[in-house]
Amino acid sequence: MQLTQDKKQRGRPAKSGRDTTQTKAALITSGVEHFTQFGFASSGLDPILKKVGVPKGSFYYYFANKEVFGLAVIAHYDNYFAQKLDRHLCNTELTTEQRLMSFVGDAKAGIEKYSFNRGCLVGNLEQEIAMLPDSHREKIVEVMQGWQRKIAVYLKTICPGAKQEECDLLAEFFWIGWEGAVSRCKLVRTTQPIDLFINQFMKLIQK
Amino acid sequence: MQLTQDKKQRGRPAKSGRDTTQTKAALITSGVEHFTQFGFASSGLDPILKKVGVPKGSFYYYFANKEVFGLAVIAHYDNYFAQKLDRHLCNTELTTEQRLMSFVGDAKAGIEKYSFNRGCLVGNLEQEIAMLPDSHREKIVEVMQGWQRKIAVYLKTICPGAKQEECDLLAEFFWIGWEGAVSRCKLVRTTQPIDLFINQFMKLIQK
Repeated sequence: MQLTQDKKQRGRPAKSGRDTTQTKAALITSGVEHFTQFGFASSGLDPILKKVGVPKGSFYYYFANKEVFGLAVIAHYDNYFAQKLDRHLCNTELTTEQRLMSFVGDAKAGIEKYSFNRGCLVGNLEQEIAMLPDSHREKIVEVMQGWQRKIAVYLKTICPGAKQEECDLLAEFFWIGWEGAVSRCKLVRTTQPIDLFINQFMKLIQK
Repeated sequence: MQLTQDKKQRGRPAKSGRDTTQTKAALITSGVEHFTQFGFASSGLDPILKKVGVPKGSFYYYFANKEVFGLAVIAHYDNYFAQKLDRHLCNTELTTEQRLMSFVGDAKAGIEKYSFNRGCLVGNLEQEIAMLPDSHREKIVEVMQGWQRKIAVYLKTICPGAKQEECDLLAEFFWIGWEGAVSRCKLVRTTQPIDLFINQFMKLIQK
């Protein structure tokens, strides 16, 4: 199925002080917040629209449907998260060894900031993937591969002697465990599961 | 909040060939199947009742409300899963080393059997914990601790020289990574993430 946000727009833009680009961006931000906490499948659009004061009729001026909106939300989250990863993993003010822990500290602070109610959008959607459109599955696989490449490059930097294949597998293992740890943090309402995971992961890469 | 299934029963039992114990068991089984695939928060009771031919009015003869029903479903799943773990981890026909891999093989077959649409009920509920009642959170923590104790005992058996605290931490790490791996299997529709996770976990315990 070909999805596009550029098809003839239904509805009309919301009457507010914002221009259409700002309103579209506000809708996406509201979507990230809502889906990160409540998931996609069970979420109606109403609370997302209400938060930014956009009536339902106007929503279709910006997005063809909820599926297309979901793809835009995933892409936005990916952009935000990939930038966060780069900021830490490429931070030349830190030693190479410190950079991963710097990302971990940032992520833990984010989880605490939202009182353990928000996890990782991608982890949430992965869990409910059986209920999501195929386009979301394809997009999430692509996003995860991008994050894995960043960790693989980092691992190759700290272990230059390691085989590329080994770095790729460890990077995949990192995100599998990471999503499990973030989910566990929401359950026990502490960030101890992330500490436990990262400590064991560091032992593995020091092998 | 004190929850009990023994409060005065509303509704009346369904008219079917089953007795009330069988109907209650059938409702719980239907709940496990449904929540394992779709989660708890977004699921109405209707498809669960429809599958076993119980009208909504009769549901309240068996369970005070959806929260109490959810607790019964979690307890049932825990019982089933703990027995599965024991069957493999205490299987004296296998070497100690083979037992964990025997469990892993069984779990992988289960995930494939349901075409990657069902994950782990506890993992699903953990992901959506912010939307669930406190009683579910407490129950899931308790269930997870039980599974962790079983893996910790197993690890102590294969590494008698290891400290108990180390076995406990590794057991917690096991379930964090396990839930992440099961979730990833649903995304990529293969059991390769479980293989990757378990291979790295075996490297850790051989350290």
